[in-house]
Parts: sequence; C-alpha cells; structure tokens
Amino acid sequence: MLEFIRSDLAEFAAYNTQHTDNSHLDHPDRLDVNENPYDLPDELKQKLAWTWQNEIESNRYPDGGYLALKDAIAQYAGTQFTNSNISVGNGSDELIRSILMCTCLNGEGSILVANPTFSMYGILAKTLGIPVVSVDRSPKNFEIDLQAAQNAIDTQAIRVVFVVHPNSPTGNALTSAEIAWLKSLPQNILVVIDEAYFEFSQTTLADQLLERPNWIILRTFSKAFRLAAHRVGYAIAHPEMIEALEKMRLPFNLPSFSIAAARLALAERDSLLEVVSEILEQRAIVYQKLEQLPNLQLWQSAANFIYARSSHDLEQLTEQLRQQRTIIRHTGGGLRITIGTPDENVRMFDRLKNALT
Amino acid sequence: MLEFIRSDLAEFAAYNTQHTDNSHLDHPDRLDVNENPYDLPDELKQKLAWTWQNEIESNRYPDGGYLALKDAIAQYAGTQFTNSNISVGNGSDELIRSILMCTCLNGEGSILVANPTFSMYGILAKTLGIPVVSVDRSPKNFEIDLQAAQNAIDTQAIRVVFVVHPNSPTGNALTSAEIAWLKSLPQNILVVIDEAYFEFSQTTLADQLLERPNWIILRTFSKAFRLAAHRVGYAIAHPEMIEALEKMRLPFNLPSFSIAAARLALAERDSLLEVVSEILEQRAIVYQKLEQLPNLQLWQSAANFIYARSSHDLEQLTEQLRQQRTIIRHTGGGLRITIGTPDENVRMFDRLKNALT
Repeated sequence: MLEFIRSDLAEFAAYNTQHTDNSHLDHPDRLDVNENPYDLPDELKQKLAWTWQNEIESNRYPDGGYLALKDAIAQYAGTQFTNSNISVGNGSDELIRSILMCTCLNGEGSILVANPTFSMYGILAKTLGIPVVSVDRSPKNFEIDLQAAQNAIDTQAIRVVFVVHPNSPTGNALTSAEIAWLKSLPQNILVVIDEAYFEFSQTTLADQLLERPNWIILRTFSKAFRLAAHRVGYAIAHPEMIEALEKMRLPFNLPSFSIAAARLALAERDSLLEVVSEILEQRAIVYQKLEQLPNLQLWQSAANFIYARSSHDLEQLTEQLRQQRTIIRHTGGGLRITIGTPDENVRMFDRLKNALT
Repeated sequence: MLEFIRSDLAEFAAYNTQHTDNSHLDHPDRLDVNENPYDLPDELKQKLAWTWQNEIESNRYPDGGYLALKDAIAQYAGTQFTNSNISVGNGSDELIRSILMCTCLNGEGSILVANPTFSMYGILAKTLGIPVVSVDRSPKNFEIDLQAAQNAIDTQAIRVVFVVHPNSPTGNALTSAEIAWLKSLPQNILVVIDEAYFEFSQTTLADQLLERPNWIILRTFSKAFRLAAHRVGYAIAHPEMIEALEKMRLPFNLPSFSIAAARLALAERDSLLEVVSEILEQRAIVYQKLEQLPNLQLWQSAANFIYARSSHDLEQLTEQLRQQRTIIRHTGGGLRITIGTPDENVRMFDRLKNALT
C-alpha cells in the first residue's frame, strides 16, 4: 500500500457501475437502473445538435454561474422559488457529496439512513470518512423503523438524515407518520429528501420547504427527463444552504452540452413528460401480471420500478434473465425491475415466469 | 447560520468563476482563462453531432468504466502506460479533490503549495478542512523557495506537494533543481505534477513516473485540445494510486457527450494540435512586442500565456482593457495574458500599450 493513501481506504471497494459485464449481449433490455426507456425524440436531438454546432464553443469553459438554468429549474420547482433556492450538480451524486462535505466532515457528525435504500449516501459518506448509522425498515411495508431512528437521533451525533421519496429499491413513498417524524427533527439536523422519482410519484414535499430551512430536496434529470447521459441533478433549499453547497461545488461542474440539454428538457417538459403516464399504466399492467406468478412477493410502487422478493436464489435468477437479455437488479434482498417499453415488459414477464416456474 | 453547516465554512467564499460580469460586452477577446482560442473545426463538430444523434442514448447512463477512453489516453501518454495507470475526472478539479480526499482527509496531513500558483489546490483543500502550507517563489524567476519548502517538509505534516509544470500564472517550467528536490522527497509524500499546459510546454515528467510510485501527473483536455466546454481531465499514476482515485470518483462523472468528445480529440490529435505551433509563434511575437512597453516586467513562458508585472494599478488597468473588450487576468500580483488569435493579440497589445503610456 502506498504510504500516503488514507489507511481506512483499503477497506472499501469502488462503486461498480456495471455489476456484470453485459457488453457481449446484443441489445439487451436494460431494466436495472431505473432509466426512462425512451431516448429524446429525434426533433429534440436535432435541436441540441444544432445548439452544439452553432452556439456552444467547445474551446471555452462553461458559464459557471448557471443562472439561466437555475431560473428555469426554480420555475419548474414552484412559484415560491427563485434561483437562490437552487444548486446544480454532476448528477445528484455530486450534490450528495457536497451536502456531506458541508455538514459532517472532520468529525462534526454522522448520517442516518434506513436500509434498504439508495446505496450512494453510505458509499459517499465512507469516501469522506463520515460515520454511517443504519436503521431498518419494516419488512412488511418498508416504512422506516421510526423508533430505532429516533433512538439513533437521541443517542448518536446524527447531523444529516437521508430519505428517498419514494424509496429505492422498495418504491414506497414517505408515509404521513414518516413525514411527521421528519418534521419533528430539531433544526440542527439536516433532512435530505431525495425526490429522484418525483415525476413518476407525482408527490413532493417542495411545498413545505420554505417553512423548513433544515430540509433540502434533491431531484434529477436522469430519470423521467431522459437525460441520464448528461449528468444533471439539482437541489432545492434555503438560500443559506444553497450558498454552502455552492462553496463546495466544483467551479465548472456542468459541461456546456449538459446545461443546454437540461434547459431544452425543461422548455419541452410538457411533451417530454407525456410518456410518464404510459410508464405508470405499464407499471399497473406489469404489477397485475407479476401478481399471478408463484413465489413472488410484490409491493406497490410510486416510482418507475417494481420491487419483489422471493425464496428463489435471486442471484441465479437475475443471471438467468440476463442470459436471455433482460437485465434486472438484485439488490436489498430482492429484485428491482425497472418499467420499460411495453415490449420490454412483456419479454421480462415471460422470462421471469419461465425462471420461476 | 444554519446550525448543521460546518462552522469553518463561514470563513470562505465560493470560487467565483466569473471575476467580473462580462455579459454586456459584445464578443470580447477572452484572454483570461488560458483557453485555446480556436473552437473545434466544423468537420469535427459535425462528427460529434452525428455521434450524438446516432450513437448516444440520452436516456441511458454513461458507460462508467471509461475503458476505451482510458486506453486512448494511456496510448497518448506513452507506450509504458496501460489503462490501469489512468483515471479521469470532471476536469482536473475533480481529480485534485479526489487526491486530497484519499490522502489528507480527517487530519491525516497537510498540502504544500508555492505561491503564486493555481488557486484550486488551496480552495479545494479548504472545502475539505485540509490545512494548506504555503511557501514563496523567487520574485526573480518564480522558482520555488526550496529551502522553505524543505523546512515545511521537515517540520510540518505535509502529505502532498502540488506543483504546476509549467506554473500558472507565472509560466515557468520546473527547473532541474526543483525536479531534483521533488525526487528527494520520501515515499510517504505524494508529489502532484499538474501538466495542464503540457502540449504547449512540450515537456513532461511522464517518463519518470514508473520509477516513482509517489508521483502523479494531471493533464486536461481543456487547454490545447479545445474541450474546455466538456470538462475532461485525467491522471497518470501508479495503479495503486489510480485504484484509490477510482474509489473516490463519482460513479458516472463524465457525461456521454464529453467521453465522445475526448475520444474524438485524441483520435484527431495530429490535426487538432497543429495550432499549438501557431500559438507558440504568437507567444514569441507578443513577448517581443511587450518588451518594448515601458513599466512592464516580463517573464519567458513555457505555456500559452505570458506573465507580467508593473507598478501600474493593475486592477484599474485590467478594467480599462476590459472596457475595450480585451479581458486579461489580474492575479498573483501581476497580469496573466493568454495568447489568443493573431488579431486578438494585436488588439491586446494596442490596448495595453495605450493603457501603459
């Protein structure tokens, strides 16, 4: 081990973005990372190509202030917000890191997560040497064990609580009991509400944000907005919190093309988000069909994926589906299946049915 | 102040990417951030537009392994390297942050810089609560005060030394005395050699890297390669150091379009880097002309900018030039003037001459 590398790093592995090598698969159905199954329409791809060729100077740094993009995001987030409530990141990941850096770093506190949940909170905390306190969720409905969570707050130096609304991989939105508990937390604890799936869940806590300076909402252009390739996430919060995030932000964190893509997506949101209703219909159809399968426990989802558990060997099961070119995710002790196009969903169902019966 | 924000953050401001508001200026000559003055040729912009429209799926996450890009970078960096020697970042900035995180975090050490130098080392260290130890450079030739530097090594817990080769803003390449001193540093100190201007300086320490596991070289596509808009930097180092950086890296830190741009730039490097010789010729011409101006002290530069000092009020001087639509940088107690196109350089000279006489 090189002597100048932090001693605790030996313990953890890099986040593996590709859990298995799928490069030999010919056009697999990728139902594993909760993307929108549709690319941008040709017309918008052409528009962005035009912007690239005529308006983006490749040799010049991006405009690092992002004011026009922040204005557009604020307008989308709600009339109560201005650009002073918005920060942007290289995906939500960079914002999660910035949140951790400006709160817990250097022994100032720990974070609280309720498992199973989005793994990046814990992974990014560890890269910063920040302790992670975990509590469980009910195995029945995946509600956070609020008693355990409150106990952690009472006994440990928790500075930030991370929740996903709705949760990944389990698909459940925050319940009123969970929201009431988040409201009860003191002002010296930051509550991060990750609404990555907002456009699918159609439920948000943004309307409560102005009254709660210790809440911050994260959103992304990577899911419903179809811009996963461009890496743009954003945060909505109190201007003082935004100011702290801006101090952490890498100066030119968004490439010019990504800025242009996010601005175009917001301008064209009415047409772009039309597929959300198709995906929600497909979710209902897939759910009904999966219900008929043996040895598969299902949960209602508020997002663009369905979570399931089974006594089958799930590692083997996902591998079997993968060999048939349907890629789903084995995580948190269950299966997380992204809703794809109608054809992809039919193929997934047939292959899963085969594997289970 | 929100109570959950780190108490030490109040002390420092966000890095201001735009030092003054230039938005009202009509097509100014931007000689302030050491960009290549030329955009990609139309043919390459068209090629990338085609790639975007036909090969990039906007709705899909980038391939987070970057193997093809790393292979191409390794091949460019030297036959002794493979992709295991390469990591990539959202500009060099992200790599600087990752280096800091995997070495000094949580009280494990301080960094050493020699001022004036690239400000991001110190700024990013502060966002991580990492102490910054500064030594001076000779006011005569901007060589690092090696005695002071050695004294810092002997008396303080320095874990990382940052040097730019050639230095910004002063333009001087590392001298043999400086290189000998870097070689003399013990194995528990990491030496970061930032070669952002390598294609202009045409000098590198890459040939010594395999013998020195405690050295790391940073490079960027933002300068000579004309890709500042796309934010791609890279590191060349020992595979163990690369592994540590990969653990720190955000999983999908490079957008698909940026990956495609960097790969295309490498494939087309012979034609793209042809303008380097024009820029170096221009640097010689500008230097000769500036030498004739009164009250202007100049230094030879190994990069695509020239550094100058003067007893004039430099804040007022840069503002005066800015009003005439030539933007240069007032930094480190002097003027840093990027070499632009021949026309831009002529206008810069005329305006500077006017201001000085």
